[in-house]
Amino acid sequence: MALPRAHRLDLIKPFQVMELLGRARALEAQGRDIVHMEVGEPDFPTAEPVIEAGVQALRAGKTGYTTACGLPELREAIAGHYWRTSGVHIDPSRILVTPGASGALLLALALVANAGDGVLVPDPGYPCNRHFVQHLDARAVPLPATAEQRFQPQPTDLAAVWDDGCVAAMVASPANPTGTMLAPGQGAALHDWLAERDAALIVDEIYHGLVYGAAPPTVLTERDSVLVVNSFSKYFGMTGWRLGWLVVPDGMQQDAEKLAQNLYIAASTPAQHAALACFQEPALALFEERRQAFAQRRDYLLNAVREIGFRLPAEPEGAFYLYADSSSLAEDSHALCRDLLEQAGVAITPGLDFGTLGAAGHVRFAYTNSLERLQSGVERMADWLRG
Amino acid sequence: MALPRAHRLDLIKPFQVMELLGRARALEAQGRDIVHMEVGEPDFPTAEPVIEAGVQALRAGKTGYTTACGLPELREAIAGHYWRTSGVHIDPSRILVTPGASGALLLALALVANAGDGVLVPDPGYPCNRHFVQHLDARAVPLPATAEQRFQPQPTDLAAVWDDGCVAAMVASPANPTGTMLAPGQGAALHDWLAERDAALIVDEIYHGLVYGAAPPTVLTERDSVLVVNSFSKYFGMTGWRLGWLVVPDGMQQDAEKLAQNLYIAASTPAQHAALACFQEPALALFEERRQAFAQRRDYLLNAVREIGFRLPAEPEGAFYLYADSSSLAEDSHALCRDLLEQAGVAITPGLDFGTLGAAGHVRFAYTNSLERLQSGVERMADWLRG
Repeated sequence: MALPRAHRLDLIKPFQVMELLGRARALEAQGRDIVHMEVGEPDFPTAEPVIEAGVQALRAGKTGYTTACGLPELREAIAGHYWRTSGVHIDPSRILVTPGASGALLLALALVANAGDGVLVPDPGYPCNRHFVQHLDARAVPLPATAEQRFQPQPTDLAAVWDDGCVAAMVASPANPTGTMLAPGQGAALHDWLAERDAALIVDEIYHGLVYGAAPPTVLTERDSVLVVNSFSKYFGMTGWRLGWLVVPDGMQQDAEKLAQNLYIAASTPAQHAALACFQEPALALFEERRQAFAQRRDYLLNAVREIGFRLPAEPEGAFYLYADSSSLAEDSHALCRDLLEQAGVAITPGLDFGTLGAAGHVRFAYTNSLERLQSGVERMADWLRG
Repeated sequence: MALPRAHRLDLIKPFQVMELLGRARALEAQGRDIVHMEVGEPDFPTAEPVIEAGVQALRAGKTGYTTACGLPELREAIAGHYWRTSGVHIDPSRILVTPGASGALLLALALVANAGDGVLVPDPGYPCNRHFVQHLDARAVPLPATAEQRFQPQPTDLAAVWDDGCVAAMVASPANPTGTMLAPGQGAALHDWLAERDAALIVDEIYHGLVYGAAPPTVLTERDSVLVVNSFSKYFGMTGWRLGWLVVPDGMQQDAEKLAQNLYIAASTPAQHAALACFQEPALALFEERRQAFAQRRDYLLNAVREIGFRLPAEPEGAFYLYADSSSLAEDSHALCRDLLEQAGVAITPGLDFGTLGAAGHVRFAYTNSLERLQSGVERMADWLRG
């Protein structure tokens, strides 16, 4: 007698970073000081005005279900946000509030992909994308992304791996782990190539807003018929609340609502009420302050890791990550990460967690830690690399 | 050019009750008074001690991610709850805190079912179960449940619909829409029959605690190797917070954690902190008061709807529903529900929302409304039925 075990479980590799994090905690328990540059969560707590809105909602007893698509006033606030930041009109009916960007990815893929269908997923990329595809027993087709192309695909890159069973391609802008963005017109080109094949473009914009320099607007300014995933976790600093959204093309609203009703009923009600405060002035000013702090850390870290021997030919424009080429420092980035943790007390993430293409020659630095700690981390790495 | 559309969307029927609810709201907007007996959400707000714990957590800045399995202290509190209420020891490592029972169902099915595999789903039953199965492009195999068997299957019922491609059976105790429970030993018998076929038993216990009379304990007292879905929504009154849990058999923990990390990262952190208060005295006393209020409503409504001509051969033992045979009152329960809404101002749910077997001859009453309102609803129905 044995319990059944779904095949997808063999396809989902455990995150290397979880093992490293476990080891880091063990070292800390022994009294070692570890500089954390592996964490994909902003170090800023949820902004006070958002906390306060959450408290008010709880005290007012706003604890029942909302409709599956979310609070109408929140969907309107998100539409207003697109208008203010990108000058694009999105009908609120196309916006579904979801339990995290995870819920949005779950919906987006369930809308377009059957078991066996192919979905192009960037390599390197957010590893859960691949696993969401495999969750549906669909095929995650690696879409190679190299530094030469700024880790963002062109239509020719789609064409190189496309097969007749493919139904969609996922990209991210700004991307995890690379921090690069789609260039102006690039999203439109991808969309048009896919549309000719009756296939869907899914764009993960969960790091939107966390951009440093000239910020390209949402892909929705270029094409309307795109599925866009976004989140209150990163720019808006609401990770643990689990709130995100999905913008669907016109015509997909009813299907998306039906899936939402069945797959998760609705997103968290207190979180939705709290999120309303994200689009008002006191919170917006805080988010801008935090963005500037991230920008400062990025500028520091980008130069600093280059100085100690890492290479970054494609400068990151957003998110809070650097995806650095470590091949001139170590043959195997996974071993390098282990050594840096054990011997230098610095935790970073090996490329393996983001795919296979060039993974052994890359590491990801997250600047979700104070400038002082980042400086201390760089000094330790510099000392260690000097041997 | 057209966007791809997954086949599963054709399998998911919209809920009839949503259409009725929409019509009820339109009538209310016209000034009509409608008695709501269709809503599957307790009318009690979240208990004050739980709200207060949520507020404290927010004020303390507990807004970051927890680990994928949930707060260790909450998993321990849930284990303690099983010990106190059922005298069974569940290792906290087997308990995963999930984003609602929806998240638990998502995990449970993704653990055991591949595309094409069969999963037995009770008819009548919670409609989302069928859709969760179809979400994975697995086959939802209807498991007929009749009043003669108290709407709960025996091994012979599994055998009657089983095929070689089946990997699991889902049951619920107390069940939605019927309110009936597995009898002592019934869960064990189902488990043993399934185990001989290397198949899994998934038991939905989200209405556990909301039982009236001698309450059979969790199926975990009978067998250890069962996947049990539970929720903070019903007995604990936390619907909109979206929090539930899944108990997995020993040996499945790592797979379940891996899936959780990828599919939803973690359940809501403020909700988890608030839920800790559910297992402490002030809240527990409130839950017991509410259970007694539900018991009173159930006793009233059960007799009252029988007196006006509905039949309930299988008396419900839990949840907050009556699944009543309307066949001697109307040929088509869907038409009956529409007529009752339009002409009597009473909203109830047609059997169609819960399956097809006997659906045209059944309706579901929810007693999630005050005794006064239920009485008013019954009077209106009695008048209307007298013509």
